[in-house]
Amino acid sequence: MNIYDIAELAGVSIATVSRVLNDSPNVAEKTKLRVRGIMEEQGYVPSGFSRGLGLNAMKTIGLICPDAADDYMAKVVACLEGSLRDYGYDCILRCSGYSYEDCQIAVSALLRCRVDALVLIGSVYAADDPDDPRVNYIREAAAQAPVFMVNGYVRGENIYCAVCDDYHASRSAAAEMIASGRRKILFLTDMDTVSTNLKRKGCEAALAQAGLKLQGDVNVGLSNQINQTRDYLLKLTDLDVDGIFAANDALAAGAMKYAKRKGLSVPGDLCIIGYNNSELSVCCDPELSTIDSRERRLCQIVADFLKLHLSGRQGGGKVYAKGYLIRRGTTDF
Amino acid sequence: MNIYDIAELAGVSIATVSRVLNDSPNVAEKTKLRVRGIMEEQGYVPSGFSRGLGLNAMKTIGLICPDAADDYMAKVVACLEGSLRDYGYDCILRCSGYSYEDCQIAVSALLRCRVDALVLIGSVYAADDPDDPRVNYIREAAAQAPVFMVNGYVRGENIYCAVCDDYHASRSAAAEMIASGRRKILFLTDMDTVSTNLKRKGCEAALAQAGLKLQGDVNVGLSNQINQTRDYLLKLTDLDVDGIFAANDALAAGAMKYAKRKGLSVPGDLCIIGYNNSELSVCCDPELSTIDSRERRLCQIVADFLKLHLSGRQGGGKVYAKGYLIRRGTTDF
Repeated sequence: MNIYDIAELAGVSIATVSRVLNDSPNVAEKTKLRVRGIMEEQGYVPSGFSRGLGLNAMKTIGLICPDAADDYMAKVVACLEGSLRDYGYDCILRCSGYSYEDCQIAVSALLRCRVDALVLIGSVYAADDPDDPRVNYIREAAAQAPVFMVNGYVRGENIYCAVCDDYHASRSAAAEMIASGRRKILFLTDMDTVSTNLKRKGCEAALAQAGLKLQGDVNVGLSNQINQTRDYLLKLTDLDVDGIFAANDALAAGAMKYAKRKGLSVPGDLCIIGYNNSELSVCCDPELSTIDSRERRLCQIVADFLKLHLSGRQGGGKVYAKGYLIRRGTTDF
Repeated sequence: MNIYDIAELAGVSIATVSRVLNDSPNVAEKTKLRVRGIMEEQGYVPSGFSRGLGLNAMKTIGLICPDAADDYMAKVVACLEGSLRDYGYDCILRCSGYSYEDCQIAVSALLRCRVDALVLIGSVYAADDPDDPRVNYIREAAAQAPVFMVNGYVRGENIYCAVCDDYHASRSAAAEMIASGRRKILFLTDMDTVSTNLKRKGCEAALAQAGLKLQGDVNVGLSNQINQTRDYLLKLTDLDVDGIFAANDALAAGAMKYAKRKGLSVPGDLCIIGYNNSELSVCCDPELSTIDSRERRLCQIVADFLKLHLSGRQGGGKVYAKGYLIRRGTTDF
């Protein structure tokens, strides 16, 4: 029996139970009586930790993402804000940008705000090797407040990660592309993050199994710009590919516009797979086949981690969600 | 000479000047000496207000939007968070949903967090009539903390509004559509907000000038779902239009998919205008003509209002940004 069970039985938030424990004036007397009644019934003895959840502690969760305007991150921010609000927490949002230095600055700035937990959104905060000393700043942050990561993994105490299995999702989609007869596959990205690297490795593994290599590995070096991606590909005069695996849907949409300019039929001459199942993917004509990167599921896992953590239960570490290909009009398998 | 001038001269944030005034331990001695030197030079006498900007006051701005996953709002949230961070403020984000009750709840919840200013994003917080008593909750909030509105206008003390001129932008785009020969124009929306109403009225005014009326006024009753919009239009068996004016780009993308299913050429048989200049508009084929609703400009106006307000200067009320049509492939004028 812990604070979370009491909150559930009383039909109030953990924060409210904590306020009752602290006899806060911000809780109605009626509610106080009901919550106290349930505590008595259940023989609940509050821990110091639970008392600490009161008015000043455990009120605010810091959300950090590189760019809240990015479609994927916007969806994650909105989803988490909703779940955490349901648990009685406010969210401070900070957009860090993508550079290593800026990410460090954002994390330490939010710790100075004395947030009660940090949620880091996106693999930009992780490293290819979860023990990499470059991400020691995350481990140091976790010594001050629990850290929850959405699609990033750093090994350490007090760090809880929900991760889409980008490697296997990509490997399996690329394997199908190869089985359908494609041999000259281009990997297309706009940024090198841990997640991008896993997608690339997944493709490479599928190709290796068929005795093949990537036909090309292009980083357009821009963030989600459809027409810039098209123009970048048009300038590559020696481009000879029959399949494109793009690290996000905007890149894939750019690849479709490239195909159109070149007079290539999709998926006949060129099959294309995107990533993230964004609105762009259904806007394209034909509709884009894309990998569902399960952002809603990742948010749910993180919210559950937070719930467990706040209730003092064990749990956490790393949980995977399985990404999978949504077959639409740009693939023929 | 006020706190903002001092901050500018010293090359630090207003918050830092305030911390110096409050002799906060969180400012380096070197900085304190420099800032105090400038104050002395300039004969600056701090107001009680400026002192109040210190560590506990004026630290946090509450951002409220209906849905942070919405493309337009995500861009505004990201843009404001960046500007306000530059001024030394943290942002608490709350997604209110769209209902009148939920909007009221969100505003009062953030006031209870003792935020130092509220920024309301989207016209859902406004009323068609800026004196409407339904928006008294905004005026009441403004009695506790200054309220800044992005694309909404409520008349009242301590309320500062940056608004895209949706009426004139729509009127002018619709007038061009009519001048190009279109007579049967459909207005397409998914929600009735103040902004939507202004867009509709703009279209109606342009039509009235040509002795015409809207051929149809369709509310698909869904939020930004491209294929649902297509299917909704396909079910309207008596639909006979040669122009569609859509209140956002996702609706316009749905209209394009409708046209394709019906075998209508765009813009030949059907010309289509979207709204917001989102990534969807360049993803469409042909690219979508759309109205730039100037969200970056609105954010800048709000950030400037905040700056002025915090420096104790006069300024504010209501500032317009001019929206305009970006001509792409779905119009022929």
